[in-house]
This record gives sequence, structure tokens and C-alpha cells, in this order.
Amino acid sequence: MLHSEVSDEIVHEAKRRVLEGMGLIVLHSGHYSKLFKALMGTTCSLNWRESTDKERVWTVAPGHPVAAGLPPHFEIPMEEMYGEPFGIPEPEELVFISWFTGGEVFRSGAAWKRGNGRVFYFRPGHETYPTYHQPEVQRVISNAVHWARPTVRIPDTCPNMPPLEPLPPDPEAAERPTIGHR
Amino acid sequence: MLHSEVSDEIVHEAKRRVLEGMGLIVLHSGHYSKLFKALMGTTCSLNWRESTDKERVWTVAPGHPVAAGLPPHFEIPMEEMYGEPFGIPEPEELVFISWFTGGEVFRSGAAWKRGNGRVFYFRPGHETYPTYHQPEVQRVISNAVHWARPTVRIPDTCPNMPPLEPLPPDPEAAERPTIGHR
Amino acid sequence: MLHSEVSDEIVHEAKRRVLEGMGLIVLHSGHYSKLFKALMGTTCSLNWRESTDKERVWTVAPGHPVAAGLPPHFEIPMEEMYGEPFGIPEPEELVFISWFTGGEVFRSGAAWKRGNGRVFYFRPGHETYPTYHQPEVQRVISNAVHWARPTVRIPDTCPNMPPLEPLPPDPEAAERPTIGHR
Amino acid sequence: MLHSEVSDEIVHEAKRRVLEGMGLIVLHSGHYSKLFKALMGTTCSLNWRESTDKERVWTVAPGHPVAAGLPPHFEIPMEEMYGEPFGIPEPEELVFISWFTGGEVFRSGAAWKRGNGRVFYFRPGHETYPTYHQPEVQRVISNAVHWARPTVRIPDTCPNMPPLEPLPPDPEAAERPTIGHR
Repeated sequence: MLHSEVSDEIVHEAKRRVLEGMGLIVLHSGHYSKLFKALMGTTCSLNWRESTDKERVWTVAPGHPVAAGLPPHFEIPMEEMYGEPFGIPEPEELVFISWFTGGEVFRSGAAWKRGNGRVFYFRPGHETYPTYHQPEVQRVISNAVHWARPTVRIPDTCPNMPPLEPLPPDPEAAERPTIGHR
Repeated sequence: MLHSEVSDEIVHEAKRRVLEGMGLIVLHSGHYSKLFKALMGTTCSLNWRESTDKERVWTVAPGHPVAAGLPPHFEIPMEEMYGEPFGIPEPEELVFISWFTGGEVFRSGAAWKRGNGRVFYFRPGHETYPTYHQPEVQRVISNAVHWARPTVRIPDTCPNMPPLEPLPPDPEAAERPTIGHR
Repeated sequence: MLHSEVSDEIVHEAKRRVLEGMGLIVLHSGHYSKLFKALMGTTCSLNWRESTDKERVWTVAPGHPVAAGLPPHFEIPMEEMYGEPFGIPEPEELVFISWFTGGEVFRSGAAWKRGNGRVFYFRPGHETYPTYHQPEVQRVISNAVHWARPTVRIPDTCPNMPPLEPLPPDPEAAERPTIGHR
Repeated sequence: MLHSEVSDEIVHEAKRRVLEGMGLIVLHSGHYSKLFKALMGTTCSLNWRESTDKERVWTVAPGHPVAAGLPPHFEIPMEEMYGEPFGIPEPEELVFISWFTGGEVFRSGAAWKRGNGRVFYFRPGHETYPTYHQPEVQRVISNAVHWARPTVRIPDTCPNMPPLEPLPPDPEAAERPTIGHR
């Protein structure tokens, strides 16, 4: 299914659920999914090449839960290359950076909170290579799912609130808006 | 003009320009503009009240360019209250926090980079009060415009890139995609 | 015990353990402890007043684990006031902001990673008031202890590393340093 | 001069000046200077190798002032290798990432605010190579000096503050501390 074939309604609904507290794990070419772009607010563009590159993934935040049990670095024998600049907001936590044979680097594992939900992007995973059969890759995904699991579900509201402390008298109170926020 | 009356095309185009490097200053109820919400990726919701609150704006980052020349705190004699939680991504730089008579607090001045552009949100400014005539408020806006001024304009691309270092031979090269990124 | 009476050796050792992965919860006047200042790298100064202020703590990140089970806001009937500006690095996650009767605000709950450990600062707790008997305060501290619990212990190293990919020949190899990093 | 030969008094004084608003540019092995470690609060350790590596520096934040006029990537023909993990706090702005022939990556350009000052770390510069004669390296350093230039000088204080709003009566006022903060 092409990204463009995902309906805006589904994207809107999924985004709402993430902001309420549901986690989201975005893999590989999901960087260009409507949902990830809508949560990031940026282009999410990058450089790419499908060839014979090897990828070496470096753990830059060894204490992060998504890196639990991972070695200082691991290799994926053949992978599509993604290179910087990657059009994302500054990661709140950068966990992995990749090295590619062809001379490029990439922020391969990055975490953000959006609303009450957690978002993790993980780069590897091109469909023509056996990347997802590799234990290190499986471990990252499994860790990320655990890390991003929902702990709250808080619906969106934008309420008119009465004061918690006494206010000066308000002669115009009757004319002021109390419902809706423009 | 209501936020909902701004066409999606204009929002898309303005967002593109911000990401290319144009700055954006968002004031008061602009928190609910389509453009700000699209750049933040979150609800941008808050609590609010139109009454007789006084607002006291505290400078929490006195060394930030947007706070240049501002005192440690200043008061706006009457203002619409905006209260936490404010549905934004973690500010990259938090410059102002407001205190309200009714007992609320709010992250009133916050900065983010999005793509190559800079975004500053500043809370004060309700249309029924003379907020924008106050020198401190004018100073913040003027500082923010200066801080967010464009220094680059970089169009979005997502190119297929040849390697910079020699790669192993690729017998399948002829069959690999070289244009488009899904 | 005064902060100044804590020996530099103990501070150094405790800091080392935090960076290896041990969490740290800093309460109230611990903002001026040698350990917190050494981990933050900043002054950690603030404005303060011991009087009859009420403190209202607002949850600004309701989805954060340290805010689990907490209401949107809670009050501490009498507390020492701490006011902005607070001389800390930008919090990686800002969880609570306080409102004080006297007109001040404060970033009362803030989280950072330092090395492989997690640090949480929580403002309330003056020794002449029964703050620590309040269930909300106990809940925050309990949540923070859970959130900051160690998951790794990684000793500091700065090793000389052999290459993972072939390098060009190095005629001067014999003369190059292989131990110590200046 | 060895890092260990710099006196603690000079480090303390220089740190104070940075926090007051003076900028700081840290180059190459300055990662292990007492001053940089004191401002970061972390180990600042890394992996390293002095051999025949080439370094390719990638600009990951092309809109950042420190990257002004720089190409998407540039090469340093021979350089000491620094590899991840680099023991720093999460950069507030990550501007450059390096690729090395031997298979490593490194966060080569990173920015933080500390107090009222700005700190930029830039990796290249080993003394046995002509790195500082390269125009791109000179451009980065020149940009960084401009970016980090002081705009304020704010001395450290931790004052007892009178309230800005009326407080309830305080029968114990005479016994409360008004000077010093422990």
C-alpha cells in the first residue's frame, strides 16, 4: 500500500490516539508515512540509495530502554542507505546513529513525546533484504514496543475554567464567552 | 477570520516556507491556528478564561535573544487566562512562564526549530484588552521577529544519492530504483 | 548537615555512580547540593521566601511516568516559595510548574538524563511544613524513584579502538599513541 | 599544557563567566578539559584512534547559524578518529555528525546553553594534521564564535524576595530567615 493511499481520516484518527497516549513505532520507509509526518510537523526527507551498502548501527545512548541488551554496534550486511540531513525535529533522545559503506551517516533511532504518547523511529528494514530476521533488529523493535506502551489515555479538551483563587469583580461577566475556543 | 476559514492550501504553503527557513511568530489564540498545529504535530489545547485576571510574565531564560531588554517579570493588568496543560511538544527553549490571579500558570514564551525555520509562540494579546500597546509586549514581539528572521532558504528534496566511497560490485544494479521515494 | 560539609570525594563518587546508571531524586533545597550542581553544570540558583505562601503544583506533562495518578493540580497549604529564574539547563522533560500566592512561578518537576542515569528534581519539601505527609507529594516521589531506577551499570572508559573497516597503510603506526587519552 | 595542570580556580572562574553569558567554543581534545566536563556534568569520554582515517563531516542542521555557508558534507583527509558513545548530555542542537573510514560515527558539532552562555563543541583538530588550515573547519569555528558571542552578563544571585501579591498574615515573620540560602 502506498503512503498516499492511506486516507486522511485514518491518519487523523491514528494521530489522535497517539496524542491521547498510544505509542507509535515507525520503521524504515515509514519516515514518509502521513502519520509520522503529521506528528513531526516537518518534511521527514532524507538521501537514499539502494545498492550494496553495509550498515553499522552505533548505540549512542547505551542506558536508554530501547538499547537494552544491544551491543555497542552491530552490522546489517546489506541495506538500503538513508543519509543525512534527515528532516525531523531535534530528537528528544537520540539512541542510534548508522554508518554506511558508501560514506554516509544517519540518525537511525530517535525518540519523541507527542501529546501523551511516545514515538520511536527506527531506520533499518528494507523489504528486499532479510533485515527483520536479524536478532539485534528484533530486539530494538521489541524494546521500543515495550518503551512506547500506553500508560494513560487522555482525550483532548480545551475547556473554559473557573478561577481557583478569588478574582476582582467583573461587571462584564455576563457578556464574556464561556463556551468554545476559537 | 476564523482558523477554520484558512484554506488547507495556504496552510500547506506557509508550512513549506517555514520549513525552508522562514521564521514564524505565533501570538495568543494563534495557538489554535492550522499552521501552528501542523508544525507542532500536537493538539495545542489549553485551559482558558476571559475574566478579570492579571497576568505576570516571568522571564525564565534571561540570556535568550527574545528576552533581551526585558525585566525579570512584567504585568499585564487584565488578560484572558491560558492555563496548563498546554498541548505542545517539549519546548526546545522555554523563555517565559506566566502567573495568573486566578491560580494558573502557563508556558507563555516557547521556541522550536522546524526544518530550517524558527518558531516562537508568545501567549499575551487578547483582542479586547490593550495588551499590544504595552512596551514589554512590543519588545518581545520585536525581539522574536529579529530572532526568527530567515538566514537560509533550502527547498525540500529526497534525492537518490551515488556513493562517496567505493561499494562492492552490485550485479542487480540495473533493476534497482533510482527515482522517487515512496 | 550543610551542603558545604559534604566532602568532594563523596560528591565525585556519587556523581560517578549516577553517570554509570544509578538514578537520582533531588528534593527541595537539594537544588544547592554539590551533587546536583555538579551534574547540571550550572548555578542552580533561584529566588526564595519563607512566609505564608500557598503553592499550587500544576501537572504540565500528564502522560509522564512521574505524574502517574496525579490530578491536574494540587495545593500545598503552606510552603517556602522558590521563584524563577531557576539556574538549570533546559529540562529534557518538564513535568510540574508551581504557582505561589505571592505572585511567583517555578519549574517544580524536571527531568534530565546524565550519562546512563536519570535525574529528577522536585521542588516541594520545606522542613518546617508537613509537605512530605501529603499524599500527592508522596506519590510524586514514589513515581520518581520508580522512573529513575537503574537498568544498567556502565563504567566509564575512553579506549583506543582498532578499526572495524580496512584503513590505508600507516607507515607511522609504530610511533602513534595507543594508551591514555590526554 | 595538560588538562590536569589547569588549576581548579581558573576552571571555576571560567565556568562562572560562561554561566554569566560568555560563550565557549570547545575544540577536539578539549572534550576532556576540566571546564567542558564541569559545564556538561558528564564523563565526556569517547572511543579514539590515531591512524590513517579520513573523516567526512555531515551537516545535519543546515539552517543552524554554525553551519552557515558550509556544504552538505566535507572531508578531512587524515584525522584522529573519535567514536561513539560520546559521554555528553543530549545536545540541544546537533549540527554535525562525522563518518570515519574505520567504520565509526561521532556527534562532531553540538550546542548547549549553560546559564546565560552558549557552548559549542567541534570535534576536528588533531595537532599532528593540518586540520585547522582547512577552509571549512575555519568557517565552522568562525561561525561558532559569532553564534556564541556574549549578549548579556548576568551575575549569579539567590535572593530572598518580598512577595508581589498580598500574603496572609504571618505571625512568625520575625523568626524566619531572610538572608542566605543553605
